[in-house]
Amino acid sequence: MHLLGLLPRRAWASLLSQLLRPPWASCTGAVRCQSQGTRDLSPQHMVVREKILDLVISCFKRHGAKGMDTPAFELKETLTEKYGEDSGLMYDLKDQGGELLSLRYDLTVPFARYLAMNKVKKMKRYHVGKVWRRESPTIVQGRYREFCQCDFDIAGQFDPMIPDAECLKIMCEILSGLQLGDFLIKVNDRRIVDGMFAVCGVPESKFRAICSSIDKLDKMAWKDVRHEMVVKKGLAPEVADRIGDYVQCHGGVSLVEQMFQDPRLSQNKQALEGLGDLKLLFEYLTLFGIADKISFDLSLARGLDYYTGVIYEAVLLQTPTQAGEEPLNVGSVAAGGRYDGLVGMFDPKGHKVPCVGLSIGVERIFYIVEQRMKTKGEKVRTTETQVFVATPQKNFLQERLKLIAELWNSGIKAEMLYKNNPKLLTQLHYCESTGIPLVVIIGEQELKEGVIKIRSVASREEVAIKRENLVAEIQKRLSES
Amino acid sequence: MHLLGLLPRRAWASLLSQLLRPPWASCTGAVRCQSQGTRDLSPQHMVVREKILDLVISCFKRHGAKGMDTPAFELKETLTEKYGEDSGLMYDLKDQGGELLSLRYDLTVPFARYLAMNKVKKMKRYHVGKVWRRESPTIVQGRYREFCQCDFDIAGQFDPMIPDAECLKIMCEILSGLQLGDFLIKVNDRRIVDGMFAVCGVPESKFRAICSSIDKLDKMAWKDVRHEMVVKKGLAPEVADRIGDYVQCHGGVSLVEQMFQDPRLSQNKQALEGLGDLKLLFEYLTLFGIADKISFDLSLARGLDYYTGVIYEAVLLQTPTQAGEEPLNVGSVAAGGRYDGLVGMFDPKGHKVPCVGLSIGVERIFYIVEQRMKTKGEKVRTTETQVFVATPQKNFLQERLKLIAELWNSGIKAEMLYKNNPKLLTQLHYCESTGIPLVVIIGEQELKEGVIKIRSVASREEVAIKRENLVAEIQKRLSES
Repeated sequence: MHLLGLLPRRAWASLLSQLLRPPWASCTGAVRCQSQGTRDLSPQHMVVREKILDLVISCFKRHGAKGMDTPAFELKETLTEKYGEDSGLMYDLKDQGGELLSLRYDLTVPFARYLAMNKVKKMKRYHVGKVWRRESPTIVQGRYREFCQCDFDIAGQFDPMIPDAECLKIMCEILSGLQLGDFLIKVNDRRIVDGMFAVCGVPESKFRAICSSIDKLDKMAWKDVRHEMVVKKGLAPEVADRIGDYVQCHGGVSLVEQMFQDPRLSQNKQALEGLGDLKLLFEYLTLFGIADKISFDLSLARGLDYYTGVIYEAVLLQTPTQAGEEPLNVGSVAAGGRYDGLVGMFDPKGHKVPCVGLSIGVERIFYIVEQRMKTKGEKVRTTETQVFVATPQKNFLQERLKLIAELWNSGIKAEMLYKNNPKLLTQLHYCESTGIPLVVIIGEQELKEGVIKIRSVASREEVAIKRENLVAEIQKRLSES
Repeated sequence: MHLLGLLPRRAWASLLSQLLRPPWASCTGAVRCQSQGTRDLSPQHMVVREKILDLVISCFKRHGAKGMDTPAFELKETLTEKYGEDSGLMYDLKDQGGELLSLRYDLTVPFARYLAMNKVKKMKRYHVGKVWRRESPTIVQGRYREFCQCDFDIAGQFDPMIPDAECLKIMCEILSGLQLGDFLIKVNDRRIVDGMFAVCGVPESKFRAICSSIDKLDKMAWKDVRHEMVVKKGLAPEVADRIGDYVQCHGGVSLVEQMFQDPRLSQNKQALEGLGDLKLLFEYLTLFGIADKISFDLSLARGLDYYTGVIYEAVLLQTPTQAGEEPLNVGSVAAGGRYDGLVGMFDPKGHKVPCVGLSIGVERIFYIVEQRMKTKGEKVRTTETQVFVATPQKNFLQERLKLIAELWNSGIKAEMLYKNNPKLLTQLHYCESTGIPLVVIIGEQELKEGVIKIRSVASREEVAIKRENLVAEIQKRLSES
């Protein structure tokens, strides 16, 4: 109050506006982001995305998943009390009459709502779509308030751990396929987490809150997490320390065996169930040939409220540090787990449909791939044009239009300049700068002789082809290249 | 008030709830729509969509367009005063701190904002994405509050009518490619519309309002439109009648010539400019071989405020009325036009970037194709699974898991049942009901002999293949089919 009085009004306004400016308002460079924490995706972005999404979706289809989509917004009540501490980040729509609506926060809750609403008891589906969260975006790490999710889920009552193992197999296939470097999938079970809390002496009312603290262990040191649990969440220090002993543990199937023998944990029924399932899971993962990629990690908790069984999270082990690349801190690139109770929350009679699924953190993957291309100076073509229609002469627009229509009608990707009389050099330069491989050239001479010249942009070689053979010749050349 | 008193309270409540129920709450059947006027897209929908969108996008790419995307929401101020009378249908986000936001209403305004913000002077791009409008959806006609748009636009200063003609060529290619039956593209020019209003005596302040009435001529009879103009919008009856004479006119390039001679219209500078451009456009359309699909139609007005030149709208001429098909009233299936002023509205210095573009009404097209399939009783496969892994014996889960992992690792689309001991009949039935063409069968005998049986689901023939040749054999069979 005192200080305020000393500042001239205009200086104060300027200071205040700087303080209030959200961090993402200052971003510059190729990615023009909007002040609301979202951004446009340029053609360069889209090319990278299309390639990565194609790989992800084809893996989902390889595993027999069907596609589906749900609306961008849901009834607000559908989304409330599903996400734990993060619920405040939901975007609500303005009340303009009718129901209260919110933008979807993930693709899992809409899927559960869909199953319950349509009384679907069994379904293997994938869903690629945007979701929205009002987070403070850290743009450096590729986080925005609008982002794309790629989910695969298996709903239905099946024999234990078979679909769960397939989800982990899918994560491995995608992460290997994308060639992001070595990775590890941490696995745990919500029942083991809860059992651990119980035997350590956490009051049941604090389970979800402590779970959410534990979930931060990949970003925060144990001492800071401990501080949060004790000071902010009122956990007894000795209870926190008991948890501390467990969350240091990670290893393979032998750690599962070891935990079966743990004097405290083995007293807890829930934990034993979780351990039993993990043992079976490891057996299947071995048959799938991916057990070496999996680590049983007692520090893995997953923040979302709806998980009930196995949970998992994939992290890149070493970021690809090639010459000149900045080290990337990207956190987890895929995650998921079992949620057996969520569908029942939407069914009027509470009928449950057990589900297990995964989400690929494609935004982070886009970011990694884009950074890598930037470092390597790789250029991407943003169009797929195969042939350019050019002329060296004036007043040849009509012939160019007839010719390009012929190419389009034959399914050939073709462009020309939208000018009556463009210079030949301008036309050839356009091909070089946009990566078009072939040029067809029509002039007076060619028209008289009934031929068209084909020019290879790379070799600059030109040959004359009879006009009636043009399409066949282009198709031949394109199929060879 | 009187009547109310006579109704028992419960009956009144029931009546009221029926009256208050929005029309779309009563929809039933395959499309489970949500009460907010949106709907989920089932795997069946998605398969149809994917096929249609693939065709549309590949046409856009054939014409050299780049992909791009913008966020689902924009600053509210970006969208206001761009859409004329329909602006009230915008979805606003709740003010949760920060800027006021609205869901995008089309893809054109975000594109113009993108060009201005990034100072892009030239761009040919396509954009496929969802938009949202708070309309009362008429579900019968496939209208929802969330729907997909497919836009193609050419931005930049070019020689007249060359990009405009390409837009019409694209519309023809897509509508022919989709085999929706015969179609016609109505063409007009905003300058001709305005010129017509001027020479008929419409006060300039009423241009946009009268334009919006004229736009309804495809759904309403002239006498109703005339009534709206005279009674609701205060137009003098004799002015309305003069307009009435013009809007009955439609024809080919000869009508353009005729209008050049029109004693009133030929006095208007704007109209003459429009007519001159249309004449040139028809010349290019003839070279493209599509002039017979185009009709100069003086009743075409297009409701949106931002058009400044050529406008067009494609309509299906006859709905495909095959045996048992209900007649479909689908209205326009593609539309667009020139908007030379929109980008300048977003540029701080008002720099203009002329644009022309089109939007494919894919939702209507989805609806037509779905209805046609329904009538024909066509079934679509919602998965792409090629091979099913089966066993006739108990305790063969481990072998199935090893086998299916081998198939996945070879890129083969494969499924199995998530059961320890499924019955063979159940497994084979699954293949038949989901359309999987091949089954690989492993049992004790096969394991001992180092073979796998391959079964064709259609012919029920089975042959034994050496295990090491399995993947090659499957790939051979799949490439043949």
